[in-house]
Amino acid sequence: MPTTARHWYYNQPPKGDIDAQTLVLRSEPVPALEDGEFLIRAVYMSLDATHRLWIGEWDIYMDRIPLGERMRGFLVGEVVESRHAGYQAGDRVVGLGTWSEYLVDDGSAFQKLPPLPGLPLADAFGVLTVAGPTALVGLMEIGKPKPGDTVVVTAAAGAVGMLVGQIAKIHGCRTIGVAGGREKCDWLKREMGYDEVVDYKNENVVERLKALAPGGVDVHFENVGGDVLDAGLTVMKDFGRVVICGLISTYNASGPVPGPYMFRNLIMRRLTVQGFVILDYLDRYPEFQQKLAGWMLEGRLKYRLHVVDGIENAVDALKLLYSGGNNGKVMVRIGPDPG
Amino acid sequence: MPTTARHWYYNQPPKGDIDAQTLVLRSEPVPALEDGEFLIRAVYMSLDATHRLWIGEWDIYMDRIPLGERMRGFLVGEVVESRHAGYQAGDRVVGLGTWSEYLVDDGSAFQKLPPLPGLPLADAFGVLTVAGPTALVGLMEIGKPKPGDTVVVTAAAGAVGMLVGQIAKIHGCRTIGVAGGREKCDWLKREMGYDEVVDYKNENVVERLKALAPGGVDVHFENVGGDVLDAGLTVMKDFGRVVICGLISTYNASGPVPGPYMFRNLIMRRLTVQGFVILDYLDRYPEFQQKLAGWMLEGRLKYRLHVVDGIENAVDALKLLYSGGNNGKVMVRIGPDPG
Repeated sequence: MPTTARHWYYNQPPKGDIDAQTLVLRSEPVPALEDGEFLIRAVYMSLDATHRLWIGEWDIYMDRIPLGERMRGFLVGEVVESRHAGYQAGDRVVGLGTWSEYLVDDGSAFQKLPPLPGLPLADAFGVLTVAGPTALVGLMEIGKPKPGDTVVVTAAAGAVGMLVGQIAKIHGCRTIGVAGGREKCDWLKREMGYDEVVDYKNENVVERLKALAPGGVDVHFENVGGDVLDAGLTVMKDFGRVVICGLISTYNASGPVPGPYMFRNLIMRRLTVQGFVILDYLDRYPEFQQKLAGWMLEGRLKYRLHVVDGIENAVDALKLLYSGGNNGKVMVRIGPDPG
Repeated sequence: MPTTARHWYYNQPPKGDIDAQTLVLRSEPVPALEDGEFLIRAVYMSLDATHRLWIGEWDIYMDRIPLGERMRGFLVGEVVESRHAGYQAGDRVVGLGTWSEYLVDDGSAFQKLPPLPGLPLADAFGVLTVAGPTALVGLMEIGKPKPGDTVVVTAAAGAVGMLVGQIAKIHGCRTIGVAGGREKCDWLKREMGYDEVVDYKNENVVERLKALAPGGVDVHFENVGGDVLDAGLTVMKDFGRVVICGLISTYNASGPVPGPYMFRNLIMRRLTVQGFVILDYLDRYPEFQQKLAGWMLEGRLKYRLHVVDGIENAVDALKLLYSGGNNGKVMVRIGPDPG
């Protein structure tokens, strides 16, 4: 058993970008378990755009992390010691924990990972914990595309975006992915099945979208905000639906952020624009995960994981999300993968 | 029969506010009717915020008015001469015509006014042509409030807003109206049945809304845009609905207009924000008008008309909408009301 474990703490509110003082890594003794508790060895941690909101100034969709407490995140790990009747050493558990090498839970934050035969732990965790359900709910329940619809996805090469395009294709839609850089765009078309791609770093997004969807766009799936959202709103078809999944381009802002300049198109194009948070759908996870895992095992839902090794690199890994420097779903491997 | 009639023409694109060169009044000979045509004497013309969009630069929800053509507007009038089999002198007709004292139609833009016993022509036209159906559709079909919901309405003293609050009350909601100035606010509470009012010119709208709806707002009905929309988005309840009926504060802008700074609350509060245009619902007008007229006759739906006399004053009347200088639904009386 370990005697000490490292944890990331929320140390100082960021002014804009996260810097070296925002989160700090500390080593602490591993506490002895009390009755009803178990000790988890963290294996993978999910890094998500929303982390920045948890340590920001905005009133968000859940409690923010109080200053001085451990950073929060989705983890998968294995139970290494238990004084809880429902858990034993070797159990794999997943939940919303803290950025920690080892952590203690009483079964309130973690639950057993459902058996997913055929799926490596990294893949199951990386796709099924946050990104997959988010993509599925956002597209199908909020966006509600019909077969034949044209669907635009921003941050299409991100953890959620790469899945949204494929789920849309599975449902008979035509897909246009917006991503930054030729390499990501080529990969989206070649590997992730996007019908068309727009490179927002090198192309005029409005003009390209107009050319690719001359009749307009039925469903827009937004992960970014800012200019790409404005471009998307500009080319919507009448009565289209806009899914607001994320606005990552605005999360590091230190002042007021203007909403989309094409907001008026909510009237002009009679749009429905709807935001959502995946945490509201936790009770439906079994249904979502079964569906997603099925597509993964059939080879119909591909993905790319961007795994960074070592808890000490978690903040650098997180920053990749805001710079777009990642290639796939960003995860930190905190300890050895039991396979 | 008249030999000449005056018409307003779209003369010059406005730079920002409408000025003396934007629309010009011209007198022209009244043409002789051809077979299938009838001549309408205009009685009332409806002035609506959307007029500015019809002569603006934006891509809107219908064709804009080409430069040099007559200004467009909803009118009610009476047929004074007819060579159309379906219409005869004395028929009252309503439709989307032009800003004209007399105009010729072939039955494509105008239809007969349904009989509305007990309702004066001004009231029937003022409430049932644009404002009433807009309020009803926007609130009930887009906002979808449930009994007991708290409903916020901006431009609550405007043509649509004064009706939305009452329709919400009829459906068991609690209503908060936002308007400019103590007089309008007092009137909304005293005469229009609003439960609470916020004077955006003299009060901090966010703080007042928080105080009046500490549990948050279920449905927000937006007519204005800008700061009041931001205030509304700030105080929404989780899973609330925001109806975008109008954004009048932005229609005279000569440059890009930022969307609401609280756009992020679409995610944080999981909001559905939806725009609509009443012209999409023309086929359901009989249903809407029957319902609205019923409430009017029962005294459950009150209203105030702001009638400006004389077609020559139409542009001044229109400007009232953008300054908030009107007290009620703005209409121009172009010719004698036949009663």
